[in-house]
Amino acid sequence: MPAKNVNDIIALCKRRGFIFAGSEIYGGMGGTYDYGPYGVELMKNIRDAWWNSMVYSRDDVVGLDAALITNKLLWKYSGHEAGFSDPLVECKKCGARMRQDKMRDAKKCDACGSTDLMEPRAYQLMMGLSIGATADGAVNAYLRPETATTTYTNFKNIIDAKPQKLPFGIVQIGKAFRNEISPRGFVFRMREFEQAELQYFVNPAEDEKYFDIWKTLRMQWWTDVMGIPANKLRFAPHEKLAHYAKAAEDIEYEFPDGFDEVEGIHNRKDFDLTQHTKSDDNKDSTTKLQYSDAQTGTTFTPYVIETAMGVNRCMFAVMLQSYTEETVGDGTRVVLKLKPALAPVKAAVIPLARNVPELLTISDEIVADLRKLGIGRIELENSGNIGKNYRRHDEIGTPVCITVDHQTMEDRTVTLRHRDDMSQERISIDDVKRRLLEII
Amino acid sequence: MPAKNVNDIIALCKRRGFIFAGSEIYGGMGGTYDYGPYGVELMKNIRDAWWNSMVYSRDDVVGLDAALITNKLLWKYSGHEAGFSDPLVECKKCGARMRQDKMRDAKKCDACGSTDLMEPRAYQLMMGLSIGATADGAVNAYLRPETATTTYTNFKNIIDAKPQKLPFGIVQIGKAFRNEISPRGFVFRMREFEQAELQYFVNPAEDEKYFDIWKTLRMQWWTDVMGIPANKLRFAPHEKLAHYAKAAEDIEYEFPDGFDEVEGIHNRKDFDLTQHTKSDDNKDSTTKLQYSDAQTGTTFTPYVIETAMGVNRCMFAVMLQSYTEETVGDGTRVVLKLKPALAPVKAAVIPLARNVPELLTISDEIVADLRKLGIGRIELENSGNIGKNYRRHDEIGTPVCITVDHQTMEDRTVTLRHRDDMSQERISIDDVKRRLLEII
Repeated sequence: MPAKNVNDIIALCKRRGFIFAGSEIYGGMGGTYDYGPYGVELMKNIRDAWWNSMVYSRDDVVGLDAALITNKLLWKYSGHEAGFSDPLVECKKCGARMRQDKMRDAKKCDACGSTDLMEPRAYQLMMGLSIGATADGAVNAYLRPETATTTYTNFKNIIDAKPQKLPFGIVQIGKAFRNEISPRGFVFRMREFEQAELQYFVNPAEDEKYFDIWKTLRMQWWTDVMGIPANKLRFAPHEKLAHYAKAAEDIEYEFPDGFDEVEGIHNRKDFDLTQHTKSDDNKDSTTKLQYSDAQTGTTFTPYVIETAMGVNRCMFAVMLQSYTEETVGDGTRVVLKLKPALAPVKAAVIPLARNVPELLTISDEIVADLRKLGIGRIELENSGNIGKNYRRHDEIGTPVCITVDHQTMEDRTVTLRHRDDMSQERISIDDVKRRLLEII
Repeated sequence: MPAKNVNDIIALCKRRGFIFAGSEIYGGMGGTYDYGPYGVELMKNIRDAWWNSMVYSRDDVVGLDAALITNKLLWKYSGHEAGFSDPLVECKKCGARMRQDKMRDAKKCDACGSTDLMEPRAYQLMMGLSIGATADGAVNAYLRPETATTTYTNFKNIIDAKPQKLPFGIVQIGKAFRNEISPRGFVFRMREFEQAELQYFVNPAEDEKYFDIWKTLRMQWWTDVMGIPANKLRFAPHEKLAHYAKAAEDIEYEFPDGFDEVEGIHNRKDFDLTQHTKSDDNKDSTTKLQYSDAQTGTTFTPYVIETAMGVNRCMFAVMLQSYTEETVGDGTRVVLKLKPALAPVKAAVIPLARNVPELLTISDEIVADLRKLGIGRIELENSGNIGKNYRRHDEIGTPVCITVDHQTMEDRTVTLRHRDDMSQERISIDDVKRRLLEII
């Protein structure tokens, strides 16, 4: 059964080295987190699974990794500079600043209860930078608030480098930044976060078809690749569409506090390419962002179907879902029942006693052999405390522990201990590689 | 023979979709670059090769991925806030701003030749941010200028999550930001760049031993994994050591304009952990950053051996080195002789004629089969222009092209064409997977 509350995961993340608060030893930096040894590996495995599914498994999608620092003009024409803001309210009495739409009572300060509040003002969510040796330190660049716009502005670069036929897609995995007034929910709403986004360019006549196809594909990825049960996921159509959108639905995961967004699928029509193309309305752009169909001889602006996932939220959902507490004997076992391909450590090799040279030599051999598989992290545990090792590897989701004992020196067999049911099997050292590959 | 000048690579990068100028359609954003479809894959392969060598192949190194937005206090105690600046000179006549130590003549403006210059002032290289709903928009955070400091400040988090015995290391691959007055040399000196850094914590008595070990290991990685010939690389000891350093040597690659830095190896002593530990000199830190040796019962501050590589420079060097122009018949062939494991595309499958259903069906089968290997990008080329396809795949470094022709339908054989010597072999479809794995 998945975690009943978020605090279980937050505690596990700190205890076992998945996620720490950003700048922690200096009192933190709100809305930022540092990913520790196992968080790094889990994030990497999620990214790789996504890239594998979205790029390597397909003929029609290519990757991109655009800079985080961007010319202000991108966000003038995307509409972010004028419209990407939250309503900020300041209390005249205590000086507290709050997001109006998140206040407990829009008329009273959340901090001191005063009703003496300033009028709400638009608070820009983009983070400004002053780049180059400017005279006055004025903001002349932004950290990108999403990856999508930097994909649109590279549209022509990419089709010039290799001609593409519709439909085709461009993906990015990368950081984005939003100066949230109130970051919240652990890694759910951060100021610095990671997106995995596809912009899929289609003939306008086929937009609805591909919107539906991508809805299906993305939901399948969540269930089949991430291992989230279908009944914990749902589609949630947006109640109010953005002015440029023809359709928009979120994929929501059932967090302990209820369903909330982990991915969005949007039909953005030709809004973005039209905004950024060189035109009478955009004399700053140097480039036409259009598509020429060699067969029909027509030139037009494709529609865009976007799938936009939060990678941090994905990891959060995967951890919540795989977190399990089980009663074992008179104690409780915490185990992270991750899909083996996502596990931060693929196998742990554990000599039964510490610093026994013969056991260590065989263990080293097994470790070296497994590392040749190129399947990720293989850990050697030389603490001699097997109970503690099992417990730790259960909590970080290692699918199998391989124990080397005195019998190993006699018959070259080891014990394979399985994470989910704690069952053990005795197998030959020569079969370890094959069994591990079967499990992963 | 490698590229004779940088412009060959810049042109190839744009033409084939490796690297584009950042924010290009809006006139650019100095010192930033966007990585296109093949640049993304090459960077990913370099990162994976590094992580594989530094983390997955070892027992004593773990990963970390810290936030880019950081509390200002990190950089107060690291010394960056006071000392990380360049001398900026402004011309009173034309207003040009220049880095004094890079001026052609320190007494004359580079832009207009005037000698009427302002006194040089210290120009802060860190990029400031105003995070949260502050009243005045004052800078209260920095984008990190390197990854190392965010590793030191997580030292205790990491050893608390899993006890480590000296020597052990923590690595990060991630972005860093420096507001260079004059970015230069394509991706050589950027404002936004990527580092791959190891901080290896050692007993102070063993610092020199591990400094030498890491020098050797890192040089081996450049030659054996990146494929750079040893005579194009050299160690360059720093002429003047930083005040905290006991030893510092760069690994330099011979760029077309001469040897220049691609990695640094430093003995930083206990400077960083001491700076950031809670002490009388640092009352802002909440945490002791020290190491307790369970066997001897002593507590002390380890020394740090750092290896710091620029990932963008690494890709640049790898491309320069593998770039080759060859005379073929009456024309010139450009080929990127990358190590096959680094190639952005592992194989291209090419039906000899376009839109012939039988050829396409077999090609699709081969592609699907190769994709199951999980070795990266496999491309299907359905343009029917085999000469153009070979040329393109030579330029992006694809190790093999697999051509499907009419004979394939009769005897299920295909032509394997090798990138480096253009030799061709006819093999059975059933052997393609095995041959490709041999080559990669």
